[in-house]
Amino acid sequence: MDERRRVAATALLLGAALAAAAAEPAKTPTLQQILDATQPADWRALDADNTLLMELPGGRVLIELAPAFAPAHVANIKVLVRAHYFDGLVITRVQDNYVTQWGDPAAEDEGAKAARSLGEAAATLPPEFTRGAKGLAFTPLPDGDVYAPQTGFAGGFPAARDARRHEAWLTHCYGMVGAARGNAPDSGNGSELYVVIGHAPRQLDRNIALVGRVVQGMEQLSALPRGSGPLGFYAEGEPRTPIARVRLLADLPPAERPALELLRTDTPAFAALVESRRKRRDDWYREPAGKIEVCNVPLPVRAAAPR
Amino acid sequence: MDERRRVAATALLLGAALAAAAAEPAKTPTLQQILDATQPADWRALDADNTLLMELPGGRVLIELAPAFAPAHVANIKVLVRAHYFDGLVITRVQDNYVTQWGDPAAEDEGAKAARSLGEAAATLPPEFTRGAKGLAFTPLPDGDVYAPQTGFAGGFPAARDARRHEAWLTHCYGMVGAARGNAPDSGNGSELYVVIGHAPRQLDRNIALVGRVVQGMEQLSALPRGSGPLGFYAEGEPRTPIARVRLLADLPPAERPALELLRTDTPAFAALVESRRKRRDDWYREPAGKIEVCNVPLPVRAAAPR
Repeated sequence: MDERRRVAATALLLGAALAAAAAEPAKTPTLQQILDATQPADWRALDADNTLLMELPGGRVLIELAPAFAPAHVANIKVLVRAHYFDGLVITRVQDNYVTQWGDPAAEDEGAKAARSLGEAAATLPPEFTRGAKGLAFTPLPDGDVYAPQTGFAGGFPAARDARRHEAWLTHCYGMVGAARGNAPDSGNGSELYVVIGHAPRQLDRNIALVGRVVQGMEQLSALPRGSGPLGFYAEGEPRTPIARVRLLADLPPAERPALELLRTDTPAFAALVESRRKRRDDWYREPAGKIEVCNVPLPVRAAAPR
Repeated sequence: MDERRRVAATALLLGAALAAAAAEPAKTPTLQQILDATQPADWRALDADNTLLMELPGGRVLIELAPAFAPAHVANIKVLVRAHYFDGLVITRVQDNYVTQWGDPAAEDEGAKAARSLGEAAATLPPEFTRGAKGLAFTPLPDGDVYAPQTGFAGGFPAARDARRHEAWLTHCYGMVGAARGNAPDSGNGSELYVVIGHAPRQLDRNIALVGRVVQGMEQLSALPRGSGPLGFYAEGEPRTPIARVRLLADLPPAERPALELLRTDTPAFAALVESRRKRRDDWYREPAGKIEVCNVPLPVRAAAPR
């Protein structure tokens, strides 16, 4: 189906969903109605070359990497993963309403003599806190933002843009994954990663490199016991969740790769989703917000259709 | 100390903190420096008549109620608590990046014949989703908001205001507690409560009654296993965290009341805290956000000074 026909068909199906909801006049279509009206081309498969699978005792976590925003970090993380760097390391930190972090606890200690070798991976990296806005396909949101001149989505990731500075960056929404760093801006290397488990700490934007996003298994990281040490690091004697292994999907036998699809963020279907959330009115919602903030937009994931 | 002298003294102490930080020119004072410079009058004690203590297996949760925003709900919750309604009930729902909810699981089922009696408490209440803005002391924030014309703080709670509609309401920030309701706006009665455990679901604002805020023990509610049923309700057979008891602090012997103080949100010290967070620059932060959103403002709590 060519692009114009596909868009028209989606519009028709969404129209039908709207008409169905219109029996009671002011209702918005549900998320499910919108997803039911999508076409196969509204979805994209997980990119096996840029998706990590992390195995924890409670289940697996899938992390989609963002090479368009942090190419050096993503490349370094792949070197580490392919050397099985993370296998047998642990969750080191869980700070309530902030982040869960993982890596080598020995690397935290001064001296770090016992720390695991980074092998072929770089120890320092250019600080990929922002990127040029030029050449970045960007789907803006309409309602403004407290922290950035403009927010929206780029390649499925929540992002922001500053036209005056010609910059774009990923935003610290719930589930976003970043590379921890020390005080030196180039000290992040991807060997220690964190994920946002609370209200978006947007003050971190442009101060640290975000490298991806959890697309499945977030509850494996968000529901862990909080650490009682400073900054939520686990104190001596507190049990740390072990990481069995981290693998790139592309390095797994095809049969072991989770087959998921993500709703594209540059489609009419996604625009309809945003609209239905902005103006949500149903049997329960009486007072639509009329607005939406970037970290409140759902990013649907589904099992891939059988081929 | 009279109010003018107190304010002047706070300003001096904050000035000293700023001067200390100024050894490296552009650093902002830390949260700790700001708290160290506060005066006793910058703090308020927990109001024993409007604070709940909830005992869970992992520890206690303290919830400060907000009678200025939801007087009927707060009064009804007190009736329920004083009848020991919640003792022996359970956490019924934990939906990742959304809410943890508790109450009587039998009340969820259709018919609800086995549900615990509400006793003297009302089964329906006026929908206290907003209140009049008139007469409400409000400390506004300077950076705008996606969802509301104005946000800020009222009596220690994050809140919003709409001058055109002459309305004010509490905002759904992390840790805020609300009264679950069915489709009927008057169907919330405080017998089923929820707390926000993810990114602020601000679309709920003005659609449901917020009744308070967790001031201590949030990790007892945020780190629980997520429910696998629809909307994060626990499915049949999933273990539910039991509630040992819920009490109003005023009903406990004085020696058993946790002695905590909260930083007042209408003080120069709080204004200094907001400013230091907006313009945060230290050994780690290189690019201050320059802005702050209502749900990112910390609300400090400390052990009360011995009397």
